[in-house]
Amino acid sequence: MRISELSRRSGVPVATIKYYLREGVLSPGELSSRTQASYDESHLKRLALVRALVDSAGLSIARTKEVLAAIDRPQPLLDLLASVTGADEDGDVERPRARAVADAAGWGDVETCGGPMGRLEESLVALESAGFDVSEEQLLALAELMDGVAEREVAGIPADDAAAAAEYVLVGTALVAPVLLALREVGHVHHSVRRFVAPR
Amino acid sequence: MRISELSRRSGVPVATIKYYLREGVLSPGELSSRTQASYDESHLKRLALVRALVDSAGLSIARTKEVLAAIDRPQPLLDLLASVTGADEDGDVERPRARAVADAAGWGDVETCGGPMGRLEESLVALESAGFDVSEEQLLALAELMDGVAEREVAGIPADDAAAAAEYVLVGTALVAPVLLALREVGHVHHSVRRFVAPR
Repeated sequence: MRISELSRRSGVPVATIKYYLREGVLSPGELSSRTQASYDESHLKRLALVRALVDSAGLSIARTKEVLAAIDRPQPLLDLLASVTGADEDGDVERPRARAVADAAGWGDVETCGGPMGRLEESLVALESAGFDVSEEQLLALAELMDGVAEREVAGIPADDAAAAAEYVLVGTALVAPVLLALREVGHVHHSVRRFVAPR
Repeated sequence: MRISELSRRSGVPVATIKYYLREGVLSPGELSSRTQASYDESHLKRLALVRALVDSAGLSIARTKEVLAAIDRPQPLLDLLASVTGADEDGDVERPRARAVADAAGWGDVETCGGPMGRLEESLVALESAGFDVSEEQLLALAELMDGVAEREVAGIPADDAAAAAEYVLVGTALVAPVLLALREVGHVHHSVRRFVAPR
């Protein structure tokens, strides 16, 4: 199909498609003449994925490009996970708050996982510096609940097909996060109503 | 203290403090001369909160201003929650995916809560349009875990002091979200190692 039809079927403006082509998050169509390229169903599918990552998950174009490159490059699943999460970065940096939570939560095996542990440390430091007090007990309870979330998500990774696994992990990590935060907010309203409006 | 000392003690550059003053997220100091203002501990505390909301929680300056205004304005807690979450918006719009999850999760009382339900619907639509399949069973399990998170968080709201409650809800909602997502990612690594590297 031509770019105009790709635009019509995907709902993405032609100018935006051209931008994605320039940025390399969408692969070029096959040249059907000197000035015209032809696109197929794979472009339509990839375009939907790009929109989801950029619009819904809020990824930058650069990060989207990395994610798509990781999907397209066959590699062992743990290497993939490491590159997605940045688990292979800065394993030696001390992260006392994150370490304390990880130990208490039974995540003793994640000592070298720099990316997520770094983000955990940063987010805990931010809480502290905002003067927002979360008790150790509360933090551990939240960690156990998020452990349950992670366990369920990892159980859903298709183990027999590396490409499918890659897509599942990358897209899932990015796109399920807003679902989880929205579920939490609906839960906030529900429990606030129960606690403050209609206490039993 | 003068702006230079406020900058030194907070670690925030003078130019950034001036920007916050212009944007109204930091209240003006008391004029000690025609060209000089004096700041106190309350400015230091507020500055830490602004940094946390902007840098860690990733809020825009406009949203930060709204959040701070809500903290500063005494109001009943549920009104506050509604304005924070946008629960009072668009209650009549149909949101079939969000509705199905909310009913299954036992959140029957959140029918008019537009903001969170709208975000839930949007995030579910985004999953769908990216072709990412989450089973009903999986979604319900995630909803139950996030319900547990929300319940614990709401239980921590100080009920006797409206101003403290406001700050807790607003700052907590924004600043705990990155902690939850980081906990989930550490959990991903832990469970991936268990499943794919050292299966029992």
